[in-house]
Amino acid sequence: MSRPVIDHTHSDELKSWVESANGHKDFPIQNLPFGVFSVKGDAPRIGVAIGDYVLDVKAAVTVGLLAGHDADVLTSDTLNAYMDMSPAKRLALRHILSALLSDEANKDKVQPLLVAASDVSMHLPARIGDYTDFYVGIHHAMNVGALFRPDNPLLPNYKHVPIGYHGRASSIRVSGTPVVRPNGQTKAPTADTPSFGPSKRMDYELEIGVWIGQGNALGQPIAIDDAMNHVAGFCLLNDWSARDFQAWEYQPLGPFLAKNFMSTISAWVITTEAMAPFFTAPKPRPEGDPKPLPYIWSDADQAGGALSIDLKVSISSEEMRKAGTPAAQLSEGPTSNMYWTVAQIVTHHASNGCNLNAGDLLGSGTISAPERSGFGSLLEITSGGANPVEIPGGTRTFAEDGDQISLSACAKADGYVSIGFGPCEGTILPAPALVG
Amino acid sequence: MSRPVIDHTHSDELKSWVESANGHKDFPIQNLPFGVFSVKGDAPRIGVAIGDYVLDVKAAVTVGLLAGHDADVLTSDTLNAYMDMSPAKRLALRHILSALLSDEANKDKVQPLLVAASDVSMHLPARIGDYTDFYVGIHHAMNVGALFRPDNPLLPNYKHVPIGYHGRASSIRVSGTPVVRPNGQTKAPTADTPSFGPSKRMDYELEIGVWIGQGNALGQPIAIDDAMNHVAGFCLLNDWSARDFQAWEYQPLGPFLAKNFMSTISAWVITTEAMAPFFTAPKPRPEGDPKPLPYIWSDADQAGGALSIDLKVSISSEEMRKAGTPAAQLSEGPTSNMYWTVAQIVTHHASNGCNLNAGDLLGSGTISAPERSGFGSLLEITSGGANPVEIPGGTRTFAEDGDQISLSACAKADGYVSIGFGPCEGTILPAPALVG
Repeated sequence: MSRPVIDHTHSDELKSWVESANGHKDFPIQNLPFGVFSVKGDAPRIGVAIGDYVLDVKAAVTVGLLAGHDADVLTSDTLNAYMDMSPAKRLALRHILSALLSDEANKDKVQPLLVAASDVSMHLPARIGDYTDFYVGIHHAMNVGALFRPDNPLLPNYKHVPIGYHGRASSIRVSGTPVVRPNGQTKAPTADTPSFGPSKRMDYELEIGVWIGQGNALGQPIAIDDAMNHVAGFCLLNDWSARDFQAWEYQPLGPFLAKNFMSTISAWVITTEAMAPFFTAPKPRPEGDPKPLPYIWSDADQAGGALSIDLKVSISSEEMRKAGTPAAQLSEGPTSNMYWTVAQIVTHHASNGCNLNAGDLLGSGTISAPERSGFGSLLEITSGGANPVEIPGGTRTFAEDGDQISLSACAKADGYVSIGFGPCEGTILPAPALVG
Repeated sequence: MSRPVIDHTHSDELKSWVESANGHKDFPIQNLPFGVFSVKGDAPRIGVAIGDYVLDVKAAVTVGLLAGHDADVLTSDTLNAYMDMSPAKRLALRHILSALLSDEANKDKVQPLLVAASDVSMHLPARIGDYTDFYVGIHHAMNVGALFRPDNPLLPNYKHVPIGYHGRASSIRVSGTPVVRPNGQTKAPTADTPSFGPSKRMDYELEIGVWIGQGNALGQPIAIDDAMNHVAGFCLLNDWSARDFQAWEYQPLGPFLAKNFMSTISAWVITTEAMAPFFTAPKPRPEGDPKPLPYIWSDADQAGGALSIDLKVSISSEEMRKAGTPAAQLSEGPTSNMYWTVAQIVTHHASNGCNLNAGDLLGSGTISAPERSGFGSLLEITSGGANPVEIPGGTRTFAEDGDQISLSACAKADGYVSIGFGPCEGTILPAPALVG
C-alpha cells in the first residue's frame, strides 16, 4: 500500500514565521493546502493557505523561488496539472513550500508574496471532468433506506459493492456560493398526480470529497495497493438534496434532479501528502459481515486505509445572523463511519476499466454516526421530517430560505498537529418564479 | 417553439459538384455534418462531411473562404465553440457551406480542400463536460422493467417524469474504438456470494445522442419552447451495458460500472439545422396516459417536436468477417417510439436550475419498437438470454468477443432527401487479465 509518508513536514515542533499559522485551526504549517484564488477580480491563480494568509504560488514562480518545479503547472489557473503530477513531485513541492514558510531565512523573500486571506476570492480548484458520488456511510445508508424502503433498508449488495453513481460536474460550486432552492416535480403519497414547484424538503449531505490525481487509461484497472497514488487530495462536499424530488424520481435509475442543482465544496485541496498522519486502520467489520472480494481488499489497506477526520455541521438562520446568534451545531461525527476506504472506492471505480482523470471528484456519500448527534443530513436527524430539530429561535424539519449550512472538518491524530479543511458553506436563496 | 427552419439548403433538387454526395446514403449536400478529423496523425481539426470526402474547414478558413465567420471557432480542435454559437450563426455557416459545395463556380477553390474520407481518422467531436442518459424508449422501459421487476415493469413516475441519470463522460469514445469486455462483480440469484470476472452478459443499447448547444446559467431553467435553441445537433450512441453487473449493483442509486466502461458515439454531428425537415408530431399518447405537467408540455412541441429517424442495428462476428459474410441485421425501428421529445428532456434537465453547457451530451435511452424486430438491445431481443437470436453461423444471447455491433440512422421525410448519421460501431475485445 503506497500511503503517503510521514516526514519532517508533519512534525508537531515545526513552526511557521507566519505567526497566525501557529495554532491555526485549519492552516498550520503542517497543512499547506492548494487552492485557486484571485484578488479584486484579477486573474485566478494557484495559492497555498498558511494561517491567515495565502502564498501566491504564481508570484513565487515568477521570482524564482520554485525553480526546478514545473512552472507551467504552478502558474496555471486550475490545479488539474498539479493533480496530474506524480506523488513524488507533489511531495518535493511540499518540502520546498514547508521550508519557505518555516525557515526564518526565507521570510524576507517570501513575505511579500503573501496575500491576506480576507482579501481573496476562492475559485473551483480544478475543472472537474467527472463527479462520482459513493454511499460509504453505512449508518446513512441504513437510516435513509429505512425511510425510503422500510421493509428493506440495507440492500443485499451493500456490503459487497462500494455503491456509487455518477453526479453532475457542471453544477459544483465553491464554498460561499448561494444555493438556489430548486423547482421540481413531487408527488405526495396521498396525491393522485404530481405537481411542480419549489422543493419543500431541502437538505444537505455531509461528505468528504476525494480529488483524483494521476488517472488510468481506459480499460486499465487500478490495483488496490496502488490506489492512493491516484489520489491528489481531499475536500468537504455538501451534496444538496431535494428529498421530495428524490423520492418521486429515483426509481429505477437513481437520483437526478434531486441532486444536480448544485453541490458545494470547500475551496482548499488538502493534499494526500498533508494527510499522511491521519490514515488509520478501518473499524473492524461487524461480526458476520462478508469479506469483500480480493480486488478491493488488501492487508495494507485494512491496516491503514481509513481517514481520521472529525466532521461537523452547523446551521445559521437569517434571524440568527440578524440577532448576532452564533451558528448552532447540528451534528458531529468521525469519518471512521465510512464502510469502505478511499482506496476501495477508487479501485472499484476503475475495476471495469473506467478511466479516471486528474481533477475528477469522488464524493464519499453522506457520513453519519450511529447516533442522532452524528447524523449527516436533516432527513436523518428529523426522521424524514417527523421530528423537528430545535435551533435558536425555532425548529427545522428541512432547510429554509436564508439558512446557512456550514460543514467543517478537522483531521486529528495523537502526537500530530490537527489540520482543518477550511469552510464549506452555502446559504439558501428562494426558488425562482416558475416559467413557461 | 423555435424549431429549425426548412430552407433552400434542404431542397431535394439541390446537388453538389462533389459527385459522390448526390445519392449518398449518409452525407448528401442536404446534410453537411460537422466533425473533428485528422490525416495520418496530424493535428485534429474541424471538417464537414460531403459524400465520400471531408471538407477541411480549418483550411477553408485559412484560404479566406469563410470570412465573416469566427475563425477561432472554426480552427479549433473541438466543436465546443461551434456548438456554443447562436443558432442564427450556425445557420449562416450552413448557408455558406451549402453554397460552397453546391455552386459549380466554387469548385476550383474548394476542391483542393477536400480530403478523401477513407484517409481520415475521426475524433470525439467535443470535450464532453457532462453526459446524461435518459430513458425515453417506453417499450424498452417496459421490456427491461419486466425482466428486472416482473411484478412492476413500468414504474408510476414514468409517464410524468422524463427519467434520466448521469453517466460517465470520460469513457465516451468515437465509432471504431474497440470496446474491452469489462471485469466486474456479479451475483447469480442462486449464488450465496458475488464473484468478480468478465461480464457474461455484454449488451449494446441503441440510442440517439443530443449535443447541447448554448447552455443555461446555473439556477436558470429553460422554457420548453426555447429548448431547441439549446440543441446543436445529434449523433448515434451505443451505451454498452454489462447486464450481469447491472442487475447486482443498480439498487438503490442506479447503473454505474455496468455502463461506464465505455460508450460509443458516431463521429459526425448531424446539426439541428440539417434536421429541420425531420421534425414531426409525436405519436399521440395512448388513451388514458396522463397529460404531463405544463413545464414540459407545449402545443408547438406536440405539433412538431418528435424526430423522424429510422434506426438499425447489425452484428458481425469474427467468423462472419473471416468468411466474408455481410453483417446481419438485429433490429430496425423508428424514433417515433420515444415517449418524450428532445425539448422535453432538455427542459426537464434544466427545470431545477441545473446548468447545461455546450458540448454536453444527452442520450435518449434505448429506443425499442413494440415488436421484437425493433428491440434496441440483446437483453430484450433474447428475453434476458432465454431465447437466443440466430445469426449467420451461430446464435447469440449476449455479445461475444470479436462481435462488431453497428448502429445506423437515417432521417426520412416525404419530399426530402434522406440523411444518414454515419457509422457507430465497436468490436468487442476480451477482458483483461485480473489484477491484484
